[in-house]
Amino acid sequence: MATPAETDIAVKSISPYGKARSTVSGAPLAPDELKKIDDYMRASLYLCLGMIHLKQNPLLKEPLKVEHLKARLLGHWGSDAGQIFTYIHVNRMIKKYDLDAFFVSGPGHGAPAVLSQAYLEGTYSEVYPDKSEDEDGMKRFFKQFSFPGGIGSHATPETPGSIHEGGELGYSISHSFGAVFDHPNLISITMVGDGESETGPLATSWHSTKFLNPITDGAVLPILHLNGYKINNPTILARISHRELEALFIGYGWQPYFVEGSDHETMHQAMAATVEKCITEIRGYQKKARDSGKAFRPFWPMIILRTPKGWTAPREIDGHFLEGFWRAHQIPIPDIAKNKKHFAIFEKWMRSYEPERLFQDGRLISELRELPPKGNSRMSANPVGNGGILRKPLHIPDFRDYAIKVARNGHALGPSMENMALFLRDIIAKNQTNFRVFGPDETQSNKLDGIYAAGKKVWMAETFEEDADGGNLAFAGRVMEMLSEHTVEGWLEGYLLSGRHGLLNSYEPFIHIIDSMVNQHCKWIEKALETEWRVKIASLNILLTATVWRQDHNGFTHQDPGFLAVVAQKSPEVVRIYLPPDGNCLLSVMDHCFQSENYVNVIVADKQEHLQFLSMPDAVIHCTKGIGIWEWASNDKDAEPDVVMAACGDISTQEALAAVALLRQHVPDLKIRFVNVVDLFKLISAADHPHGLTDSAYSAIFTADKPIIFNFHSYPFLIHRLTYKRPGNTNMHVRGYREKGNIDTPLELAIRNQTDRYSLAMDALQRLEGELHNRGAATREALLDEQIRMRNWAFEHGTDPDEITNWVWPY
Amino acid sequence: MATPAETDIAVKSISPYGKARSTVSGAPLAPDELKKIDDYMRASLYLCLGMIHLKQNPLLKEPLKVEHLKARLLGHWGSDAGQIFTYIHVNRMIKKYDLDAFFVSGPGHGAPAVLSQAYLEGTYSEVYPDKSEDEDGMKRFFKQFSFPGGIGSHATPETPGSIHEGGELGYSISHSFGAVFDHPNLISITMVGDGESETGPLATSWHSTKFLNPITDGAVLPILHLNGYKINNPTILARISHRELEALFIGYGWQPYFVEGSDHETMHQAMAATVEKCITEIRGYQKKARDSGKAFRPFWPMIILRTPKGWTAPREIDGHFLEGFWRAHQIPIPDIAKNKKHFAIFEKWMRSYEPERLFQDGRLISELRELPPKGNSRMSANPVGNGGILRKPLHIPDFRDYAIKVARNGHALGPSMENMALFLRDIIAKNQTNFRVFGPDETQSNKLDGIYAAGKKVWMAETFEEDADGGNLAFAGRVMEMLSEHTVEGWLEGYLLSGRHGLLNSYEPFIHIIDSMVNQHCKWIEKALETEWRVKIASLNILLTATVWRQDHNGFTHQDPGFLAVVAQKSPEVVRIYLPPDGNCLLSVMDHCFQSENYVNVIVADKQEHLQFLSMPDAVIHCTKGIGIWEWASNDKDAEPDVVMAACGDISTQEALAAVALLRQHVPDLKIRFVNVVDLFKLISAADHPHGLTDSAYSAIFTADKPIIFNFHSYPFLIHRLTYKRPGNTNMHVRGYREKGNIDTPLELAIRNQTDRYSLAMDALQRLEGELHNRGAATREALLDEQIRMRNWAFEHGTDPDEITNWVWPY
Repeated sequence: MATPAETDIAVKSISPYGKARSTVSGAPLAPDELKKIDDYMRASLYLCLGMIHLKQNPLLKEPLKVEHLKARLLGHWGSDAGQIFTYIHVNRMIKKYDLDAFFVSGPGHGAPAVLSQAYLEGTYSEVYPDKSEDEDGMKRFFKQFSFPGGIGSHATPETPGSIHEGGELGYSISHSFGAVFDHPNLISITMVGDGESETGPLATSWHSTKFLNPITDGAVLPILHLNGYKINNPTILARISHRELEALFIGYGWQPYFVEGSDHETMHQAMAATVEKCITEIRGYQKKARDSGKAFRPFWPMIILRTPKGWTAPREIDGHFLEGFWRAHQIPIPDIAKNKKHFAIFEKWMRSYEPERLFQDGRLISELRELPPKGNSRMSANPVGNGGILRKPLHIPDFRDYAIKVARNGHALGPSMENMALFLRDIIAKNQTNFRVFGPDETQSNKLDGIYAAGKKVWMAETFEEDADGGNLAFAGRVMEMLSEHTVEGWLEGYLLSGRHGLLNSYEPFIHIIDSMVNQHCKWIEKALETEWRVKIASLNILLTATVWRQDHNGFTHQDPGFLAVVAQKSPEVVRIYLPPDGNCLLSVMDHCFQSENYVNVIVADKQEHLQFLSMPDAVIHCTKGIGIWEWASNDKDAEPDVVMAACGDISTQEALAAVALLRQHVPDLKIRFVNVVDLFKLISAADHPHGLTDSAYSAIFTADKPIIFNFHSYPFLIHRLTYKRPGNTNMHVRGYREKGNIDTPLELAIRNQTDRYSLAMDALQRLEGELHNRGAATREALLDEQIRMRNWAFEHGTDPDEITNWVWPY
Repeated sequence: MATPAETDIAVKSISPYGKARSTVSGAPLAPDELKKIDDYMRASLYLCLGMIHLKQNPLLKEPLKVEHLKARLLGHWGSDAGQIFTYIHVNRMIKKYDLDAFFVSGPGHGAPAVLSQAYLEGTYSEVYPDKSEDEDGMKRFFKQFSFPGGIGSHATPETPGSIHEGGELGYSISHSFGAVFDHPNLISITMVGDGESETGPLATSWHSTKFLNPITDGAVLPILHLNGYKINNPTILARISHRELEALFIGYGWQPYFVEGSDHETMHQAMAATVEKCITEIRGYQKKARDSGKAFRPFWPMIILRTPKGWTAPREIDGHFLEGFWRAHQIPIPDIAKNKKHFAIFEKWMRSYEPERLFQDGRLISELRELPPKGNSRMSANPVGNGGILRKPLHIPDFRDYAIKVARNGHALGPSMENMALFLRDIIAKNQTNFRVFGPDETQSNKLDGIYAAGKKVWMAETFEEDADGGNLAFAGRVMEMLSEHTVEGWLEGYLLSGRHGLLNSYEPFIHIIDSMVNQHCKWIEKALETEWRVKIASLNILLTATVWRQDHNGFTHQDPGFLAVVAQKSPEVVRIYLPPDGNCLLSVMDHCFQSENYVNVIVADKQEHLQFLSMPDAVIHCTKGIGIWEWASNDKDAEPDVVMAACGDISTQEALAAVALLRQHVPDLKIRFVNVVDLFKLISAADHPHGLTDSAYSAIFTADKPIIFNFHSYPFLIHRLTYKRPGNTNMHVRGYREKGNIDTPLELAIRNQTDRYSLAMDALQRLEGELHNRGAATREALLDEQIRMRNWAFEHGTDPDEITNWVWPY
């Protein structure tokens, strides 16, 4: 490649106007077919304008009046034409090659495009019979759009054929890849907005081709829509030189084919030829790989489509640009209800699509109805768009078979995560085409590398000799690792939404990177629950490890257990949070999560060796209840306790137990009840979450009047948030991470946040009443001395004393 | 550009081994200089190994013993050599061209590289005199690294010269651009890890060149380090063809220069020639633009440096690859304390750097000490690395001059945001070289476009004729808009950390995209507060608008006021949250935030026209207190109220006030106190946050025993979290967003979440005691009827009734 000269930059970007300019030449459409395709596009555009503007007079049978307009005009016109144009040309290919294709609408608020197509294909009326293919149905179809009580301007869960809402930008490519993994015949037609292309998640997701196997996976055909403008700005990709644009996508590993212009006839010919070129290339690569049995990574084809923003709108109004400018982004002419001249322009524009010719009694004329494919071949009716239909049950071995032997409670350390990896390995082994594990380069660090025995890491980029030395890379595998939390989360979401199962594993601190993506997935699931025809999908399972209390050595940036608070803000119908205290509980919780549907399950468990508390039968009971008194760790049998020591989280539980042991050693007659919480939402009122305990059940565990010392894995306020209404809530003293840390030992980190055994024991003594309180004073002094001795030892030696690290329950 | 053929992919990636292969030819180094440079590099690498492993015997004067090793080996070796290699060659250019340069270490845990350089340059000992340039100082320098109570393995705030910790990956390029904006002579030497390159934020940040003006801004020289591996995986960019790699960066708008290999002599020559080529190109472009006064966008130079991971470590141990493989990522030989053979290999390796020759009494020998630049020209001592030093005060006009006239409280609507834009405009006008406004394509949508009068949007990509029609684009401007929350946040952080001032504006729902970045910035500030020599920087100001209660029309995906809970988890020393109820309060709050230091200030205010409550003098008093009783809206004068109505947030305040009006209309003798909260942390205990009220001050406002109906902008639980300890907390009934919404009107959205005036009034009546409670029953019925009537009207008309939308305080 030649060295670019600075003058290259001075080359004017390409105008979106004029006759088509395209990489692929050819004019495959006969005049009659071209005319029909253009008419079909015009019918679709008419519907877009209708749904954005009209609540009455849908076919413009009467002269348009202001009272036919919605009072508040909402929706986005800007990307509709380009999306419709693409959709229709793909339809032609679906029919010609009997493709299994579906459509992902990436640009924000681009729903009119896909809604209008679903309506023209008849799918919309099948799913929503009141939106029938007649004048009344069309009126309802128009009115509901962006109207109170109706549907939104994104491809929301209510949209037939959609698995990608596009409310937040940047995930279209990663969702599409997720959907085509292990769907070898599926092609995701993915419109990518040039606005969303500026987002980080989208910018890196182009590299997904390094993880796509042409034998076992389907294909993604991206159409980068150089629509030119965002809300109020030009887009970067529409304003760089042709040479940079082409180089960028070759650099990303794609073969870009350009289609640019605005002239309908030549644009249809160019797009028809280009889409066919792409489809035949995709099928050719797949055939070559499948025939030979040898996977390889081709430069997969993609289309760069440059058309004017708001294509087919008036170019100029009152000396201001409309079509081809950012003013066409949302409502093209916002003041039509108040400006007569603009109202007239609008009516003329709407009528220019000739509704009276294209629709008969509100139904598309029959010669155009023949254009799209039929039945499930329609992109709006592809079963992938309602992935729950396709979902096969996961074959899960009996998790009890992986039990860690626990002869005595809390007497030995064990590798909870490494052990769970064996369970996970066997799930992978039994589900080789519909289960994958996703993560950002941390699977091995997270002690889950046992799973590679059943499924290696997919890697379609180059391999070196060294990779044979424990690299675990393969063309075909079950583990997906890329150092982009956004991309792996997007892949997993696409994989689940298209009817499969999976797990994301991540370091706890960096899961905040995808806060917003998880929020959006929660919202999708909640709306899907309200959409009757949507079949449930597998839950999104997020396993958080490398947790805060063992991030002492990585320092302050790696200490953030706050994702739980983000998740807890979402709808209780959708979110679940589990903190299994040990290895057997982790197995039980994972089994439960894998069987669940339509949830976001967050599981927090550290990856290091930790104390094992419960035998498998006890773990099953404990996890089923989600919360419970551990009698073996309590000495309040047949009596009221003096104090309740509670814990949630593996390391938190260990420190709380050690605190109990210290208390019993120093104040043997103190009655202590030990409570452990696995299912965080047990703490909240039953009125606020389906898992919540009743107040009486809560009080039976925590008492209504005794001091409670609660050692929590995350920020302490989350517990107060959950329990503020509970009886005795003023007795609740929560310890957790308080944003105190640096390069520490585990004990020092805990001490800084007052979650260590000594602080907890001192806390408990402090809260006692009367004589016990007075007696506790000397013990508090002794505990403080011991705490100081331990931390000084650690500062000198650089590690915690063995008696801390290898502490076991002494009873 | 030719069409790529599929076979291109089969071309083996380039090995990082062997003699240098480079784009730029030449051998500028004389043998003596080359020898010195290589020795300097070896000295630096020796320090890296030392700090990772040793606590004693720093110069290996004695034979190495196990007890000289730290008990726990921590730190990362993998990227050190490549970073050091680069740093040293830049030093040569700093001296030759008297450059103003600093170093950004992007790769994770790469601190040993920059720490060793700071030590060799003498900066470290100047800042930390106990880490002196002698044997004892070196011992302490080694021991503190990744040791409890010491410093971390990232370029943390404790690191001289650092403004980029690199704890979370992906922000090196955006931080660097932020630092060089408006610093025309500054060059940021930015090492970019090939791991971090896979993250979304990094992948899109390469486009920052479209926003860099060669006249008024400095330059970024990125060195993409193809180190080959992440924790346990190869990196994508190291495993694609040369052609793809080159195309990718040309596509991003850069001119890549390759330097690849492992042979020291030829690599030094190649790097010396290449760095000089890049520096002269940068200076050439700057000169051309500055001489001509015409800004342009060149293909800025960058370096792609391919060296073996863990370069200079043993290549193989026990048949397993080390150098050039992921095993060299962290501790290269983890078991040296237990494996005698490995211990011997390690000692031999360490001695191979010849410490006895390169150091004299622990100090670098004098002929090598001459190599780096002196004084503030040292990258470790560049004042930009302690940006507070450079910070000039912001010239802020008197915000009172922008007051919205409020003759009677709550009697007229006004454009709070549009009005504040005028204040912001004049701040921009008065601070044309050290203040910028950042945002993702929403400044105009957020009604802040008034600011363009004082500073247009920077745009170095192509412009079209249309742009003159309200495009507000310019080569030189003050507003930075790219549709990447990550990039604009990264720019702003870099801008602040290097001593300037700024503001980020964003739609409220999508601020979660940068949760993790804001978390990390909070952590940086908190550690900086503990680092004595760091001078305070301007606060990070985040203005959230397009808020949840006016996202009725955009639907569920756009409804998320949860960022406040994320921020509230960070240290109280660092975070501040303000919800000004109206335009004058917004002015007062913004003024305060712009004057503050070392905080993250979050300001929430909607962009639509809203009711104006307070005159400017009243607003100043109210905002100074942060919370207060609004006597004009209360009727409990000289008496105890029956109920307290409280609100926090502009729209929440309006609905709460309307509820008060309804109550007073229906139950005239009801005594109601109205409380408004601007500064959210006033609610929390003074023990938990510096802004917190004492309990007595809190009770004086909220009472200790009356029912409180609290209408909150965000999720209700956040208020409970803040107030659970307060007297009378069981009387606190909070309404807020409860994740209920779709396509609604504002009123309908409020009703769904019970935050509308009717629900609040009914709530209040429900909580009354005795006779008032009984009397309230009929009123509750009447209010319910009215609520139903209003929502039915809205469903029919598509908008709220005018009496809701244009409601004003009737008293």
